Amino acid sequence: MELIVIALGGNAISKRNEPLSIENQYRNIDATTQLIAKLAGKYHLVIVHGNGPQVGLLALQNAAYTQVPAYPLDILVSQTQGMLGYMIGRSLQQHEHVKNVVTVLTQVEVDPIDPSFEDPTKYIGPVYQPAQQQQLQAQYGWHFKQDGQYLRRVVPSPKPQKILEIDTIKQLLNKDTIVICNGGGGIPVIKNQLGYQGIEAVIDKDHSAAQLAIQLKADHLMILTDADAVYENWGTPQQTPLHHVNTERLKPLAVDDGAIGPKVKSVIEFVEKTSNKAYIGNLTDIESLLAGTKGTIITK
Amino acid sequence: MELIVIALGGNAISKRNEPLSIENQYRNIDATTQLIAKLAGKYHLVIVHGNGPQVGLLALQNAAYTQVPAYPLDILVSQTQGMLGYMIGRSLQQHEHVKNVVTVLTQVEVDPIDPSFEDPTKYIGPVYQPAQQQQLQAQYGWHFKQDGQYLRRVVPSPKPQKILEIDTIKQLLNKDTIVICNGGGGIPVIKNQLGYQGIEAVIDKDHSAAQLAIQLKADHLMILTDADAVYENWGTPQQTPLHHVNTERLKPLAVDDGAIGPKVKSVIEFVEKTSNKAYIGNLTDIESLLAGTKGTIITK
Repeated sequence: MELIVIALGGNAISKRNEPLSIENQYRNIDATTQLIAKLAGKYHLVIVHGNGPQVGLLALQNAAYTQVPAYPLDILVSQTQGMLGYMIGRSLQQHEHVKNVVTVLTQVEVDPIDPSFEDPTKYIGPVYQPAQQQQLQAQYGWHFKQDGQYLRRVVPSPKPQKILEIDTIKQLLNKDTIVICNGGGGIPVIKNQLGYQGIEAVIDKDHSAAQLAIQLKADHLMILTDADAVYENWGTPQQTPLHHVNTERLKPLAVDDGAIGPKVKSVIEFVEKTSNKAYIGNLTDIESLLAGTKGTIITK
Repeated sequence: MELIVIALGGNAISKRNEPLSIENQYRNIDATTQLIAKLAGKYHLVIVHGNGPQVGLLALQNAAYTQVPAYPLDILVSQTQGMLGYMIGRSLQQHEHVKNVVTVLTQVEVDPIDPSFEDPTKYIGPVYQPAQQQQLQAQYGWHFKQDGQYLRRVVPSPKPQKILEIDTIKQLLNKDTIVICNGGGGIPVIKNQLGYQGIEAVIDKDHSAAQLAIQLKADHLMILTDADAVYENWGTPQQTPLHHVNTERLKPLAVDDGAIGPKVKSVIEFVEKTSNKAYIGNLTDIESLLAGTKGTIITK
């Protein structure tokens, strides 16, 4: 059986206009796992999920309860891995053809001098009005950037280097287990004389999924999102969806900013290192993506 | 190599008189893993940890941030599995002889009509003054009981029945991996027509460790705590530590209340079902317990 690494975008778990209640998240997750379950039994599957809204909520809850010092981001990411791994796993287990699903807590090593520590770009948590933003900035020293018409908190998002639990993930895949791992991009750690240590960051889940797919020599990397494809000239009258493309064609879109940049960079890295296929498209098109009839399909 | 299931008591992670900061928890965890690491390479190891203070803190943080509805206890338990599995695993990995450590997110099935849903007994979170307790009870409908001279929140603690990830745990142990699982007693789920569903409870970690040790046919079950042994006539002038005992001798102490009751019940169940050895004693005596020179050692 071939191996697919699936990276689930934010909207697979929560919609921006909905409160981040457990009920809302399960409704989205149930719709997501129904689609993923169609591939169970036909492919080995690894699922990587984002955690931007969830890690942001934990930070706000930590800030609101002042009796205990707020926990650093590596700890909050580990909490979201527990929560979302459980929710996605439990939901997926309800489907036929799904035999065994397990969540592996995953640490991902990053470079302590990654440039992103100087220039935070990863959005987490909800959108804020200017007055709220100013208060949070003054109180906690958080950084903020414009996200569309709103302000959101941004944190460092260093490049994933090494997945510490890779051997365990391989062993479980060999046993036909669906593995949920690298949740929220993975718990960010750096190496020093004492061993590994946590660091304040949130790794991009698409980069993390690509790194994982490379290390697992996956046959397919699917980056699922709410856009149906990658577009050239996005937001202009000339915008055109890209269907079957090679990595050269995508390179002009591999920018650091914007929603699609990290996804494009991730698939380019995977395809160039493995010569295997990558896909960017809508979650609801998961089977058509594999069949090559929808979305953006990237080959070398 | 023989298999030991280790259940870590609260003080292995946090002390009651210290704030629940990450620094304090790492200090305790580092001292704990230094002791556990002595067994690495000599035994297969499974580590089960409690989460009472941590799950209680998450509940308070959820209550303090009112923009999003508070999450149910199964979700909060899953968050503590992520956090504490990460912290314990990372700390353990720093030691020589420790090759591979992994945290497996664990769901544990409970009976939806377990009597504990009618009579919550499991302490979580900090101690409260009467005024705080009355406010929290009025605002959230939480239940409280006396814990020593203080009041603490109590939640249902149903008996663990089935560990859903048991096959994965076995596979990893066969690969010489140290497995951290059943954290906080395991994420409590019940079975219905739709599959498994979360339920509001916190499973006792000693009962959960015993159930796990039975299902894994472990050679040893160690319940590590801050007492150096089980005592007869505790708190009276006649109090006497029990050293080598059989399960019959322990049965009068297998009560539902108090700190030692659930531990005694757990070891009795394990020893009677497996005919293997169990230990209750101080974390710092871990090697002497195995050697039979300290603590309470229970055989059939």
